[in-house]
Amino acid sequence: MTNDDGFSAKGFQVALDVAREFGRVVAVAPATMQSGRSQAITMYDPLFLEEQQREEGLEVYSLSGTPVDCVKLAFDYMLTSQRVDLVISGINHGSNAGVNVLYSGTMGAAIEGSFYGVPSIGLSLTDHAADADFAAAKEYARSIVAAVLESPEEQTRGLCLNVNVPNIAQSEIKGVKLCRQCRGLWHEDFYRHEDPRGRAYFWLKGGFCNCEVEANDTDEWALANGYVAVVPVQVDMTAYERVPFLEKVLNSPQEKV
Amino acid sequence: MTNDDGFSAKGFQVALDVAREFGRVVAVAPATMQSGRSQAITMYDPLFLEEQQREEGLEVYSLSGTPVDCVKLAFDYMLTSQRVDLVISGINHGSNAGVNVLYSGTMGAAIEGSFYGVPSIGLSLTDHAADADFAAAKEYARSIVAAVLESPEEQTRGLCLNVNVPNIAQSEIKGVKLCRQCRGLWHEDFYRHEDPRGRAYFWLKGGFCNCEVEANDTDEWALANGYVAVVPVQVDMTAYERVPFLEKVLNSPQEKV
Repeated sequence: MTNDDGFSAKGFQVALDVAREFGRVVAVAPATMQSGRSQAITMYDPLFLEEQQREEGLEVYSLSGTPVDCVKLAFDYMLTSQRVDLVISGINHGSNAGVNVLYSGTMGAAIEGSFYGVPSIGLSLTDHAADADFAAAKEYARSIVAAVLESPEEQTRGLCLNVNVPNIAQSEIKGVKLCRQCRGLWHEDFYRHEDPRGRAYFWLKGGFCNCEVEANDTDEWALANGYVAVVPVQVDMTAYERVPFLEKVLNSPQEKV
Repeated sequence: MTNDDGFSAKGFQVALDVAREFGRVVAVAPATMQSGRSQAITMYDPLFLEEQQREEGLEVYSLSGTPVDCVKLAFDYMLTSQRVDLVISGINHGSNAGVNVLYSGTMGAAIEGSFYGVPSIGLSLTDHAADADFAAAKEYARSIVAAVLESPEEQTRGLCLNVNVPNIAQSEIKGVKLCRQCRGLWHEDFYRHEDPRGRAYFWLKGGFCNCEVEANDTDEWALANGYVAVVPVQVDMTAYERVPFLEKVLNSPQEKV
């Protein structure tokens, strides 16, 4: 298990509780807030590992790195000789629907988990508050984890799920909806200030823009309409539809510059 | 223009030279090394901006953030009322082929540029050395930039290219090859040490594993066989082929937890 809000975040503790119902849990989570860290890895700083908790069936460590660092250290150092059945990342405080999958540290870690062949679930609640109500998210996390663990291994190998739970009362949630990733983008408002020495600095403060408000098969639509949105994630980013045009305008293999 | 090795890197200066042949250049590049920063954004730290260079047709700024922060600040703060024809990210010191597109700060910035509708080119040379020989990369960068700028705008809107140049003599390069992103993954060796106070720390040190050594249409194959590899990049990460299985095992919209 890991997350991107740090090991002490409420959503992480909720996910730990869920995971423990299913078996032994080893958690390596960032020592500090790593929101927006995407699939970043730490190449030029040492990674400090600290044990935070150890009891029957549970080990929790903090690492001074990114969520992906945590997954890598768990697989390639801590658990090299052990079988891992599932990676859980989250529960994130805030949405990772749509294009947020690209910026999300939570999803960066889930994608990394799937590289190791293990089914990996990124869980998010669309509420940024530190004390957000995770009751509904917990229930849906439990049922999705159960469904994945009960499925045949050949069906879940390398599976990666981006699960987002809407911030509404559990009784109002209509169920789980399988979706595709919504097209969208962030427009940033940069807040400019100056420090006491006159140096300009900026805070990034964005607003999300849904580019497909009409579509009813996207994760953004599902969330806006009371569903838990589940998007299976893959990592081939090749834009195949661009190839014919590019073949025309770029040099062919026979031509040299 | 931006990059991920920082504004003082040799590859960035080479790319600046190329870009200046085509028109006015505004560059916002990271103040420090941001390799492996993926599409990370800086949400919890201020971003300090410093002018580094200003002359006819050229402005270079450094920003204390990630490559994506640089692109966002350029579009959403510095150039809001100006037309941007092209985003160039790089030239990176090191390969961004295959799955590296996910970890790469260079490609994170290029992807971000394409979100603004502007054609965006990430350039990399498969040589990590600070004093790498960019002669061939410079020539191919020039020809690819020219091809994109000469193409009709409706064809290049939102285009994103991942261009990797092999680290061989220019005379040995066979030309440009359009490819798909190779499947692969990194296996990490973590170097464990202890600081003078006994705290354990780790350095991430990976080895790349090509999962498709037989395929001859991937970027890794092209590089290994003397071609400049060009992969068009898109950002829909939905794993559509997983949907039928998931529809069977996850709750349907009618069912509630």
